[in-house]
Amino acid sequence: MGMLPDKAVPDIVIGRLPIYLRALAHLEAEGQRIIASKDLAKRLGMSSAQIRKDLSHFGEFGKQGMGYDVTYLRDQLRTVLNIDRRWDVALVGAGDLGHAIAYYGGFEGRGFHISCVFDNNPQKIGRRLGRFEILDAIELPAKLRELDIRIAIVAVPANAAQAVVDDLVTGGVKAILNYAPITVTVPAGVHVQYIDPVVHLQRMSYYLE
Amino acid sequence: MGMLPDKAVPDIVIGRLPIYLRALAHLEAEGQRIIASKDLAKRLGMSSAQIRKDLSHFGEFGKQGMGYDVTYLRDQLRTVLNIDRRWDVALVGAGDLGHAIAYYGGFEGRGFHISCVFDNNPQKIGRRLGRFEILDAIELPAKLRELDIRIAIVAVPANAAQAVVDDLVTGGVKAILNYAPITVTVPAGVHVQYIDPVVHLQRMSYYLE
Repeated sequence: MGMLPDKAVPDIVIGRLPIYLRALAHLEAEGQRIIASKDLAKRLGMSSAQIRKDLSHFGEFGKQGMGYDVTYLRDQLRTVLNIDRRWDVALVGAGDLGHAIAYYGGFEGRGFHISCVFDNNPQKIGRRLGRFEILDAIELPAKLRELDIRIAIVAVPANAAQAVVDDLVTGGVKAILNYAPITVTVPAGVHVQYIDPVVHLQRMSYYLE
Repeated sequence: MGMLPDKAVPDIVIGRLPIYLRALAHLEAEGQRIIASKDLAKRLGMSSAQIRKDLSHFGEFGKQGMGYDVTYLRDQLRTVLNIDRRWDVALVGAGDLGHAIAYYGGFEGRGFHISCVFDNNPQKIGRRLGRFEILDAIELPAKLRELDIRIAIVAVPANAAQAVVDDLVTGGVKAILNYAPITVTVPAGVHVQYIDPVVHLQRMSYYLE
């Protein structure tokens, strides 16, 4: 059956699709061509009913009792998530974390490509970070519009994050991944996700005796 | 009212408590002493009904129409999440990402303290990373048991992550924050959370035109 995009799908469901996609990519790398929903569920520590229900928002991807075709389901999920293309991404912040992100091997082939790096430190502007020349953060809004960039990663200190986010929004960015340990404010229609290791640690310490 | 810990609370609810805690810490830093659930909800882009329902698992934290006492609720959530103490954390991997994590200012005061750093690269073992001497990863299980460490952060390449996780489990670790872009397998009773920037980017690209 074809894919039936449905923009009313709960965000919590959308949030699980990349997890399924990661598992499918891993299965494909292992040479597995078919996976039963119960085996996918076991691998992810979820119920198979949850997986089937999540996927049912987008069509029918498996025949009863036949399992999912790994490559087909992967391709369909890539289409649903709009990553059957490559998005250019701006990185703001060229410190230790910015370095780690700029060199991170996990973006390519998963829909994203860091295409420019910004910092506001005069000692860094104009210098190289790997394949990038570090650009002046003061040029953010203009440069983002020029390059038609819709997605950015913020890797600056907490006290600089809101100002950077404001510049990103001015420059037309609609999706922001924020590593700074601070909640930022954005207008409606702009999406923010947070990378905060402590949030994950606290979720686990709940279960420790 | 007192806190009523309830280990049957859904993990998805537990996962939101650190988000509330972060917002409360921010409100307290701003000098706000009381917050209405609707204002907290607005700040977090959630419904106030969801917040009230989540918190109701643990007791009654606000009087009808009176809002929440910011400091009291923060302290109660810290107790629920077992971070009214400080957990020592092992960091495995002393590359760019390990550096960024070792220097990250967001752990202290939020329940966690990196207490040792490991790597398997002979060029790095014995050298310093900030306040740490980099320890040999071959000693992981023994050292973790000696230091009674229950929580670890994995910042190694994908192809090394499962072996590191196995050593962590052997060493008695029960909670693992994995930055490597790979799903790892652990026995029952061991918790894993993933830091994968692409998962967050994919969740947002769904909404982009």
